[in-house]
Amino acid sequence: MSYTDKFFPEEPSAPKIVTDSIPGPKGQNAIKSLNEVFDARCVYFLADYRKSIGNYIVDADGNTLLDCYAQIASIPLGYNNPELIKVAKSDEMVSAIVNRAALGNFTGVEFENIQRSLLKYAPKGQKYVWNALSGADANELAFKAVFFNYQSTKRGFEKPFSAEEEQSCMENQAPGNPELAILSFGRAFHGRLFASGSVTRSKPVHKMDMPSFKWPKAEFPSYKYPLEANEEFNKKEDERCLSIVEEYFKTWHCPIAGVIVEPIQSEGGDNHASAVFFQGLRDITLKYGAKLIIDEVQTGCGATGIMWEHERYNITPPPDLVTFSKKMQSAGYFFNDQKLIPNMPYRQFNTWCGDEKLVMLAAAICKEIQEKNLLTSIKETGDFLYQKLEDLQKQYPDFLKNLRGKGKACFIAFDMPSSEKRTEFLNKMRISGVNIGGCAEVGVRLRPTLVFEKKHAQILVDILQKVLATL
Amino acid sequence: MSYTDKFFPEEPSAPKIVTDSIPGPKGQNAIKSLNEVFDARCVYFLADYRKSIGNYIVDADGNTLLDCYAQIASIPLGYNNPELIKVAKSDEMVSAIVNRAALGNFTGVEFENIQRSLLKYAPKGQKYVWNALSGADANELAFKAVFFNYQSTKRGFEKPFSAEEEQSCMENQAPGNPELAILSFGRAFHGRLFASGSVTRSKPVHKMDMPSFKWPKAEFPSYKYPLEANEEFNKKEDERCLSIVEEYFKTWHCPIAGVIVEPIQSEGGDNHASAVFFQGLRDITLKYGAKLIIDEVQTGCGATGIMWEHERYNITPPPDLVTFSKKMQSAGYFFNDQKLIPNMPYRQFNTWCGDEKLVMLAAAICKEIQEKNLLTSIKETGDFLYQKLEDLQKQYPDFLKNLRGKGKACFIAFDMPSSEKRTEFLNKMRISGVNIGGCAEVGVRLRPTLVFEKKHAQILVDILQKVLATL
Repeated sequence: MSYTDKFFPEEPSAPKIVTDSIPGPKGQNAIKSLNEVFDARCVYFLADYRKSIGNYIVDADGNTLLDCYAQIASIPLGYNNPELIKVAKSDEMVSAIVNRAALGNFTGVEFENIQRSLLKYAPKGQKYVWNALSGADANELAFKAVFFNYQSTKRGFEKPFSAEEEQSCMENQAPGNPELAILSFGRAFHGRLFASGSVTRSKPVHKMDMPSFKWPKAEFPSYKYPLEANEEFNKKEDERCLSIVEEYFKTWHCPIAGVIVEPIQSEGGDNHASAVFFQGLRDITLKYGAKLIIDEVQTGCGATGIMWEHERYNITPPPDLVTFSKKMQSAGYFFNDQKLIPNMPYRQFNTWCGDEKLVMLAAAICKEIQEKNLLTSIKETGDFLYQKLEDLQKQYPDFLKNLRGKGKACFIAFDMPSSEKRTEFLNKMRISGVNIGGCAEVGVRLRPTLVFEKKHAQILVDILQKVLATL
Repeated sequence: MSYTDKFFPEEPSAPKIVTDSIPGPKGQNAIKSLNEVFDARCVYFLADYRKSIGNYIVDADGNTLLDCYAQIASIPLGYNNPELIKVAKSDEMVSAIVNRAALGNFTGVEFENIQRSLLKYAPKGQKYVWNALSGADANELAFKAVFFNYQSTKRGFEKPFSAEEEQSCMENQAPGNPELAILSFGRAFHGRLFASGSVTRSKPVHKMDMPSFKWPKAEFPSYKYPLEANEEFNKKEDERCLSIVEEYFKTWHCPIAGVIVEPIQSEGGDNHASAVFFQGLRDITLKYGAKLIIDEVQTGCGATGIMWEHERYNITPPPDLVTFSKKMQSAGYFFNDQKLIPNMPYRQFNTWCGDEKLVMLAAAICKEIQEKNLLTSIKETGDFLYQKLEDLQKQYPDFLKNLRGKGKACFIAFDMPSSEKRTEFLNKMRISGVNIGGCAEVGVRLRPTLVFEKKHAQILVDILQKVLATL
């Protein structure tokens, strides 16, 4: 009995579309009204979450769509998952909602166990976690940890701040506020606040008109597909990109304290890189005394068939910090070196220091993934799906290009010939009963839940086949 | 029948201390163990939230303390408030927990009503809200709105980005990433991320070793107390501080797009300012085409006996943006001008665009404050308490200095003669059964819940009297 058979007995067996457009008339009116109190320009359709179930999302007009986007890759175990509903209804959760703690000052007696149950699922080589509220927040807190560590190493961990440092930092000046950089990659996405925005490089709309830190942008490999047929080219591409990184370390006008990289650039187009590339980054950061931050916000929590995508590459020693959010529901960064805990209290601090109810949820999600072997099943689904997509690629080589994500569960993407065709494709898929998202300019990314099974994949393939024939 | 009599019939009638120190032996051991998985250096004591009730917090050793700090000013209606427990247990809340929406793309059908119920409690003159996850996040998103507006005004709202802007912003360079500033004030606190950290000026520990934006720091008035006896001096202080602000607008090396200010600087020492000062800021921002952001993170949601502290000053026209968090549990910024909605979609955007469960909670908190007239009762408590504190100030003029917050409910503070005495005082208060927090170097701030009543105030005063006698 599959997971969805057991836990979602009422999950629909197929999409059901009841209006001529999505959103239908009811949804369109509701969006207009919503727009008076919320910027609704980006709303694809209004969802009826209480009616949604498993892999199916129901909209305001009663359309039922197979959801291959899952709240921008953020719903881990399907809508209204009964195991998570138990957690949501628990006395512990109710208390966490009405008595939200300032965790850093007045930690609840139950919190240590919650934190330990989350840490069981930390990436290999990571012993600690610091909690955050979103992916952007997690990345920026990771940057703080890296900068504190960099300056403490320089100053001496036991040494107090100098009077000059204290005075200058209150004026936003060096030496208290030093010039330090985080290096990121072209097409990277790490968030939209000011420091996270400065390392995001996927689209101008994410960065335009914001003051930014003058941090360096290296190049992420652009491989040729299929990978097996282009080994020589792709190897040179790794070398080229790594040499750019090293060049920045040698020449940048201020110290580069850290490098942040996604194991698979997701928002930026589902761009993959090799174990050689990641190990090369590790080697360069070690050589120059910088920290390596792996951003697993979109790839983590089992999305690629392994709990943390970067573990696939056996980076040695493991990365210094690993950030997470999205499917984990909670956010934060894992780390291993105790020296990434600031040398003084109150340096990495804020009112709430995370959100206990989300940490509780994160631990429950990870436990469910492990206990129900969901990594195994999502990998099987992915292998099945990838093979079907390869067939479709052969059939429609102009419309389904650069298929990628083989062996990485359902974390699969392909390209359309143009941005316009991509929009047409996504709209046609939606009105045919499948919700999918795009990435970068022409990419289509599959981001279903972890309880997406072969039967769901087959429905996706059938509808894909139908829609591709109309493009 | 008072609110606590009605809703917290089991609230203790007095603190009860059962160990010789706080934390006691059990708490100390638990903190040591917690520290293995969480930076517990700032933990005052471990709390047993499920046993805490109303204004009383219970610790791991079974000590029961009257809580005048309330999770760094963040618990609005007392521990385990039954009206909030109803909300926490509702089907809507359970769904929001297990089906967390990417609100900007797939808004739930129920969300419009939730958003409207929050907007009922917006400050006068504010029509819209954008949701965030913390005070720092709210302030930074407000900055983004201000910067977008500033550049769109310059460029023309209908005009697309130029090729040069698009290319340069991807390199973190002007003109796409322009030099623009937010002006803040000495002793201000607005958060600890990178842009919010750049406007925070309360203590070096909040800013040290972080790269920062080179933004200007004006001076916040330092009044002499009691206010009635120092009108002439304080008036000149307003003028002096306003002229510094205007000078920055005339001379700063880049445009100042916004000014951020707290109605009462809280973390920075409970520093108050006059209606004249705030109107002066409004006038200057209007004169120079900048936006005025009021940070109500700590002062808002009724803490000062009025829903939003800045409304007391009748700033005309009202401020452009008002940020909130803490007692609201949800965070975000209110605003009025539609032009603060970015001219293009996806500019102010992120995966979750807030957290529906927290918006739901915020609306419920505001509703409860209004329906149960909690602003009236907290003002009465504050007036009663202030008078008692004035008496104590006369009795202990060396230890209870610069009493401030008259007429502002229980948002009251005073100063100790030194940082050491302050620490001694806070520790002695705690072991005597009252949990209080400090602010700035020598300040003591009272931040009880909104259901703090005369009977609680009397207990606080009695214990204060006892402890002051021992200093």
